[in-house]
Amino acid sequence: MLKNYEIRKYQIPEEELKALVKEKREELVRQQMMIKEHKLPVFVLIEGWGAAGKGTLIGNLIKDLDPRFFSVITMKAPGEEELRKPFLWRYMETIPEAGKFVFLNSGWLNETAEDVINGRIDETTLEQRLGQLRTFDRQLKDNGYLVVKLFLQIPSEEQKQRLEKLGDEKDTKWRVADKDLRQVKKREKYEKVYDRILEATNTGYVPWNIVDAVDKKQALLQVLHLLTNQINQAVENFRVLPEILHKDYPLLKMPRLAQVPLDQEMTKEEYRIRLKELQKKLKKLHNKIYRKKIPVVIAYEGWDAAGKGGNIKRLTSALDPRGFEVHPIASPEPHEKSRHYLWRFYHRLPKDGHIAIFDRTWYGRVMVERLEGFCSENDWKRAYNEINEFEKELSDWGAIVLKFWVHIDKDTQLARFTERQNTPQKQWKITEEDWRNREKWDAYEEAVDEMIAKTSTENAPWFIIQSNNKYYARIQAIETVIAAIEERVGSV
Amino acid sequence: MLKNYEIRKYQIPEEELKALVKEKREELVRQQMMIKEHKLPVFVLIEGWGAAGKGTLIGNLIKDLDPRFFSVITMKAPGEEELRKPFLWRYMETIPEAGKFVFLNSGWLNETAEDVINGRIDETTLEQRLGQLRTFDRQLKDNGYLVVKLFLQIPSEEQKQRLEKLGDEKDTKWRVADKDLRQVKKREKYEKVYDRILEATNTGYVPWNIVDAVDKKQALLQVLHLLTNQINQAVENFRVLPEILHKDYPLLKMPRLAQVPLDQEMTKEEYRIRLKELQKKLKKLHNKIYRKKIPVVIAYEGWDAAGKGGNIKRLTSALDPRGFEVHPIASPEPHEKSRHYLWRFYHRLPKDGHIAIFDRTWYGRVMVERLEGFCSENDWKRAYNEINEFEKELSDWGAIVLKFWVHIDKDTQLARFTERQNTPQKQWKITEEDWRNREKWDAYEEAVDEMIAKTSTENAPWFIIQSNNKYYARIQAIETVIAAIEERVGSV
Repeated sequence: MLKNYEIRKYQIPEEELKALVKEKREELVRQQMMIKEHKLPVFVLIEGWGAAGKGTLIGNLIKDLDPRFFSVITMKAPGEEELRKPFLWRYMETIPEAGKFVFLNSGWLNETAEDVINGRIDETTLEQRLGQLRTFDRQLKDNGYLVVKLFLQIPSEEQKQRLEKLGDEKDTKWRVADKDLRQVKKREKYEKVYDRILEATNTGYVPWNIVDAVDKKQALLQVLHLLTNQINQAVENFRVLPEILHKDYPLLKMPRLAQVPLDQEMTKEEYRIRLKELQKKLKKLHNKIYRKKIPVVIAYEGWDAAGKGGNIKRLTSALDPRGFEVHPIASPEPHEKSRHYLWRFYHRLPKDGHIAIFDRTWYGRVMVERLEGFCSENDWKRAYNEINEFEKELSDWGAIVLKFWVHIDKDTQLARFTERQNTPQKQWKITEEDWRNREKWDAYEEAVDEMIAKTSTENAPWFIIQSNNKYYARIQAIETVIAAIEERVGSV
Repeated sequence: MLKNYEIRKYQIPEEELKALVKEKREELVRQQMMIKEHKLPVFVLIEGWGAAGKGTLIGNLIKDLDPRFFSVITMKAPGEEELRKPFLWRYMETIPEAGKFVFLNSGWLNETAEDVINGRIDETTLEQRLGQLRTFDRQLKDNGYLVVKLFLQIPSEEQKQRLEKLGDEKDTKWRVADKDLRQVKKREKYEKVYDRILEATNTGYVPWNIVDAVDKKQALLQVLHLLTNQINQAVENFRVLPEILHKDYPLLKMPRLAQVPLDQEMTKEEYRIRLKELQKKLKKLHNKIYRKKIPVVIAYEGWDAAGKGGNIKRLTSALDPRGFEVHPIASPEPHEKSRHYLWRFYHRLPKDGHIAIFDRTWYGRVMVERLEGFCSENDWKRAYNEINEFEKELSDWGAIVLKFWVHIDKDTQLARFTERQNTPQKQWKITEEDWRNREKWDAYEEAVDEMIAKTSTENAPWFIIQSNNKYYARIQAIETVIAAIEERVGSV
């Protein structure tokens, strides 16, 4: 894309330019209200050669915008903590809220190019990452985001001159990074890598826009033009339903809930002995994954009163508290609700070597949000694939991903609800909502069956934890975790 | 405290210990519900010698707790980003929400000791920091937190043996840090530094508890005992009103709002010329503070329709977007509301070299929260001093702190409200609430006068921006910012 890109200097006469820029700027100011009303999040990624004028361009774009409606984020090379998260983690962190702009000053293109050029990632990782970037773009788009990707293009000679000029002046010298100088020296290599990434992520959903940045005013007009156009388009098309995709993930054959036997027995005595053995083993394995920097993500879903809490507790009490976190998931807070629904789960991902346990999860999308109408039909139908993609990304990152449906039958739930109601210390655990949910048992069961069937992938399988007998269920869960870790790191 | 601390081994006979630990653990489990009901946040800091058993202790404390009610945070040496924030920033980040436990695995004591021993801070900084730590403890306590500080004490010989044992085994070798070995070698030096910090932060509000950690079971019982006791106490005393303090900050003599003239004139022509000059200057100064790593915090408050937004915009449009952030402050979200009221502002502090502009601020506590009864009288009366302390901490960190009250008279507000109401593009800016607030003008004016009088410190002064004429106001604000920066870095 870059190689054959023709620099067309001064397309618009200087005298017209000023008026046009003014006009477009005013349009952008009006669009602030428009995106607010339509709750449209606008994510603008600005990439380009060093000294191509990214900073100046952003400064000019935001000049008349209301600071309450935008933020500018400058991405630097990832720090130590960030490198311990999935690649896209820090970009996911920066996505705008509904109705706001985020301008990203250089991002995943630059980071990936530097990784390739400095030999930090191999071909497989690069391919994986390019796939993730396409998915990222599509998911944002499908979830109502406008993503605008710009690449500021200047010829090699121009870049060289600019860097020299910056380097000559006392006030600007510090702004010339080694990386920029490297770009001049290795122009062709950079061009090749940039082109590969640009082409691989130039999707119909979110295309790249190459901007001729030799003349800064022309560049500003170009960008204003395409930004305002794309905002108008996004607002016009906001009712267009995204396609419901089914990527070909290898799905495991799973039983329906009704087929799962729940008559397992386990005595307290048996349970105690077994638990002790298993916890000892898990403790050692925890140590091992910590040292091998393997992240573990465990998702808990299940019927109310199925025993999720107690189950999690038996798991965690074997773990070194410095190496795990439990995330209880309630309904989203406003700043969470106004972003991609996976955002708050991304945000809570563990560092490598750590275990994150989610007490309720992203599967809310295809259960409660589906059944209570908190999202549209298209939203939850799309979610199976989106979630598979999300979990694939986690396992590509190196994570062990396990999902537990803690299962009981309807009678057992009634018995436990009643017991809670009648035991003063347990009354806080039972609410009106639990009884209301119980009335929808059949609808939930259908949704759960569909969810398990559509999202039980090889890399992120569901396990139905048989929890009419809580002892049995706890042993089953902890055994499952141990087996999954042992499969990765060998037994201890 | 450590030097003369007597290790009293085996205070309780082995046979009684087990039953007592069990009893106390059960009490702690019951207390989970108690702290939930009382919305009591419990912040447990566990410090101590390397290999004293901090991790094991925390593991034992949380064993029977519900993972939804606690989290364990292990503090490491601060990363590059963290070092660019105020010292207490990352600790403030970790404070628990109401009704939850946070166990902090080593924290400010250890960090400060390492800083002293490795010569990273001088005497003045140390003294400053110790003062900040006392303030931190008191503010948490006064704002309804239970803070429990523990130091796990073991003799030098014991530590040495433990480290040797850890080092000998393949599985545990990696856990021995250089820092731990240094402690053994320089025991006396560490003891001296620890003692100094312990003594300086051993306040009546939040005392230190030195725990004999030679015998791990005894230590567990000790800690369970004091933790459960302190929780009981905190719950019993929750109605005790904290004292309202007035630290002796040098206050600037400020006029009352009624005394401030609002008849300034400025033509658009004059404004444009002046603005251009000033923005040019500010741009250069922004560059300078970026390079000198000076943080700037600008707080905007003012009457509705006083022109805060436009004023901020004229300021920011002179700034490099990579170096500032504007934080619009609305009513707190649930996770913000359930923490110390300054938490969400702390969270948004800039890195050094950056500018943070707050569009409405922590002064909400003594205005809207006071007048609408969102906090108690004791809360807002205490807040003047708490805010002065907060801002002092910012300036001790090196920040330039400026506060603007954007002022108009009642007639001007009415005119602007009416204009907004009558201009379709501006209607979103005016709400019922604005009209309701207007009715309370007098009460607000009284609160603002009190606020300005009590919090206009030398290090964080208020400026009353005369905004009947918006042009005048914008020039005044930008001039004020320039003057403050020039005072620090010289003129450009």
